[in-house]
Amino acid sequence: MHPARRLTFGDLVREHRRSYPEGVALVDGEVRLTWPQFDERTNRLAHALTAAGVGPGDRILWLGQNSFRIWELLGAAAKTGAMVCPGYWRWAAPEMAFAIEDFDPRVIVWQDEEIGDTVAKARAELGDDHRALWLRHDAEGPDSYESFLASGAPEDPALDVDPDAALLVIYTAAISGRQSGSMLSHRNLLAMGASAAWMGDIGRETAFLGAGPMFHIGNYQFWGVPAFVHGGKNVVVRRVVAEELLPLLAEERCTHAYLMPPTIAQLVALNREAGHDLSQLRASVAAPLWQGTVPTDTSRFTRNGGGEGRGYGQTEVTGFAVTGAHGGSGLGNAGRPGPFTAVRVLDEQGEECAPGTAGEICVRGDLVHLGYWNRPETNEHRFRFGWWHTTDLGRREADGTISFLGTTTRMLKSAAENIFPAEVENCIEAHPAVKEAAVIGVPNERWAQDVKAVVVLQPDAGPLTAEEVVEHCRARIASYKKPKTVEFVDALPRTKDFAKDYAALDERFGGGGYPGGDQLGAGR
Amino acid sequence: MHPARRLTFGDLVREHRRSYPEGVALVDGEVRLTWPQFDERTNRLAHALTAAGVGPGDRILWLGQNSFRIWELLGAAAKTGAMVCPGYWRWAAPEMAFAIEDFDPRVIVWQDEEIGDTVAKARAELGDDHRALWLRHDAEGPDSYESFLASGAPEDPALDVDPDAALLVIYTAAISGRQSGSMLSHRNLLAMGASAAWMGDIGRETAFLGAGPMFHIGNYQFWGVPAFVHGGKNVVVRRVVAEELLPLLAEERCTHAYLMPPTIAQLVALNREAGHDLSQLRASVAAPLWQGTVPTDTSRFTRNGGGEGRGYGQTEVTGFAVTGAHGGSGLGNAGRPGPFTAVRVLDEQGEECAPGTAGEICVRGDLVHLGYWNRPETNEHRFRFGWWHTTDLGRREADGTISFLGTTTRMLKSAAENIFPAEVENCIEAHPAVKEAAVIGVPNERWAQDVKAVVVLQPDAGPLTAEEVVEHCRARIASYKKPKTVEFVDALPRTKDFAKDYAALDERFGGGGYPGGDQLGAGR
Repeated sequence: MHPARRLTFGDLVREHRRSYPEGVALVDGEVRLTWPQFDERTNRLAHALTAAGVGPGDRILWLGQNSFRIWELLGAAAKTGAMVCPGYWRWAAPEMAFAIEDFDPRVIVWQDEEIGDTVAKARAELGDDHRALWLRHDAEGPDSYESFLASGAPEDPALDVDPDAALLVIYTAAISGRQSGSMLSHRNLLAMGASAAWMGDIGRETAFLGAGPMFHIGNYQFWGVPAFVHGGKNVVVRRVVAEELLPLLAEERCTHAYLMPPTIAQLVALNREAGHDLSQLRASVAAPLWQGTVPTDTSRFTRNGGGEGRGYGQTEVTGFAVTGAHGGSGLGNAGRPGPFTAVRVLDEQGEECAPGTAGEICVRGDLVHLGYWNRPETNEHRFRFGWWHTTDLGRREADGTISFLGTTTRMLKSAAENIFPAEVENCIEAHPAVKEAAVIGVPNERWAQDVKAVVVLQPDAGPLTAEEVVEHCRARIASYKKPKTVEFVDALPRTKDFAKDYAALDERFGGGGYPGGDQLGAGR
Repeated sequence: MHPARRLTFGDLVREHRRSYPEGVALVDGEVRLTWPQFDERTNRLAHALTAAGVGPGDRILWLGQNSFRIWELLGAAAKTGAMVCPGYWRWAAPEMAFAIEDFDPRVIVWQDEEIGDTVAKARAELGDDHRALWLRHDAEGPDSYESFLASGAPEDPALDVDPDAALLVIYTAAISGRQSGSMLSHRNLLAMGASAAWMGDIGRETAFLGAGPMFHIGNYQFWGVPAFVHGGKNVVVRRVVAEELLPLLAEERCTHAYLMPPTIAQLVALNREAGHDLSQLRASVAAPLWQGTVPTDTSRFTRNGGGEGRGYGQTEVTGFAVTGAHGGSGLGNAGRPGPFTAVRVLDEQGEECAPGTAGEICVRGDLVHLGYWNRPETNEHRFRFGWWHTTDLGRREADGTISFLGTTTRMLKSAAENIFPAEVENCIEAHPAVKEAAVIGVPNERWAQDVKAVVVLQPDAGPLTAEEVVEHCRARIASYKKPKTVEFVDALPRTKDFAKDYAALDERFGGGGYPGGDQLGAGR
């Protein structure tokens, strides 16, 4: 491809320096960087990285909380062809050590405040097995991030970088018990930025309060990257403290924010007394909570019947690939794909499932990631038949919208047939008398497993028999998927993340014999 | 690139078939195609093209007025890797013959109505030198487009197509006297569709009245392609007849339209009597003319101080690369580039011009075309230094916005220095007493040419001397660019396109000796 058609994330920094000479790119505490200042700092950092031997395909690991320096590392890596992983700062020491071994970074930028002890333990655990350059970011001094950056020249390094190379890596997908780093390219991020800007009505005037974690795709999509690619302002916050966020929202005239509903409730309550003018804010998350405090939401995300963030996505497709902005009021619970994306619901042979039939949600297009770092076999499997396989179960509805049903990583086996509990649970939960259901597999010597449903009834529902549950399923899904036995309980056991606790259900109701081993039936 | 990341224009047709099973893709007179019908017709056409030997890189030429069949040909070509050129239906026979020879199409789809005679003359002129398959689109019968299409199977041809291949070709850029076909790729069109959708607030609910010519990029960008990529409706009209457009606007509930101001004035006048409900229409062109008839424009194109279509572009960058939506209220007359685009103002050595200094506008990114068909030397020259060279003169202003000043294809030579008349004219026209100015070159044996300015004063302006004009320039642009002589006239001569008539000025004031030859100084 001719260089004149290769636009990288770094090229946008170069462009914004010229287009927005007075524009503010980043705010973080006392730090305030215009686009020209940001461009120059990423130039310095790029030169310093090159001098430290960091070239195309090399890795940089961030071990700290949210910081404007993550954006700087992305800008500098974008100019050198390297990739940056903002690690999960709540990792325990063994998890951190695993990530360091797995990602094999040449440079690690770390934070002492709050996580210094964990970092020290992880380093001790690794011993001499890692040879990264360690830079502390929350201090001055010879081994600090700031002296490292200052050692580089301010000129543009002007290196040729491939926009299809990896830039941002996010650890996710703890399938089979360990996390993997999803590699997102320049092109992934630019396409996501453009489509999310359309959804969120983002432009150069956008000021985004990024209070979501930067180790997660959510904060990048809603609305860090769209604000960045449009030359808007990213206001970075290290931790979510409502008393600090409220004046920041007002002073920085934030138009968009990534905030969780409990924080929004706190902010609204605090502002009854403080009386800050928040009229600039067009909340795109949990809009009803803001009622009377900020103006109506102007984003397509809610305007088109999208509801509160209705959609379907995963890190591996650079966030939401299907959204309410493309069809939120339809039959499916997730909406439709946008113009950078195609979705197919495929069966296990790679054939398309007819509308109304469940299968694996598969994705194609500019939002599909490059694969997981250092997982060649998983990548080959997940990219089979020319589509990215999400491992999620879904259905194309008659009106063309898409329903997300659950995961395919929990699977039962009945004779030669694979059965996804998520599909059976969705079917049972569609019965008006049912509040919720969980499906497990019970060992059967001849047929491998039997399907067992554990059902919670609606409080005001009339009586429902096991036979009625089975008949309900028989009329709606293939016969081999219907439960053989049904148990009624008052409530389902929950894990601390409020997920259905299948391990507890297996123990109580004799579950087991899963095809991938009994560890939650998750090993496919 | 893995197939899961290769999304083509054809993949969008496949996706929309699934996402919008009842959605209308195209309306044209009596023809009304849903997305599934459109997908099936493009499948049939793709099979028929393959059977006729049309493969990747092969050309299809359309010789007719606007038709839904141009969209069908694009869809089918997108599924086979071929490219489609909608020719200029007003071409004279020799121009048409030139285009056929130059583009060398395997298939020509032609129209008898209105242009049948010209087509016959062009065919006669070419004699046996062309061996295309000719298909008439406005008739039934064995050599018709419809029988050709019907001969193909309805199944998806499922061919692998490169999204960086050419798809749409538009003849433009009559530099050095002949037109050239600008090749736009799938990726060009998808990126343009996404960025224009952001500008125009386009989504699946959009119904676009495409009354602009389909041989021109304008109708595709505002808003044919954005409506297409979002699964909206394209209403195609063969010719602009206000009496026919008015009921169509109302019946199809059009939200967007490509209409010229005189047509809008006609429509508004007609509707005073007809009283159609046009409340759905959010006019994005010439908004003030609609006042009181349609609601306020919601597009970013006007909302952000973009004015009436403020921007800068050319076919070769898939339309507008710089728009008011990214900074219309700034110092520059064209705005700023969007997030798919970088712009540099370069001098003749490929070095960047400082803000305030004029140079050639150069572009990089996903909107930059693949080059001109069959013009390898021009392409190499125009893609030099890693940037697409537009041949247009511009300036980055102090606030980062961009001014378009004129063309670099008219150039004077004074000693070793190149002088672009557009820059000098812009400088003179900035004088409050000047209404307009034209700059020509007068032969000078020693210095090649002298700069001469022809100036028209504002009607109410006081007296202005030649010396004052020269001093005004000396203070603002490099000294060698200032006019040596100044003539005052009551009005500038104009061509029939209302451009400044430089040939007439050269004749009247002794112009000549241009570096590229005297043919308007245009031959660079």
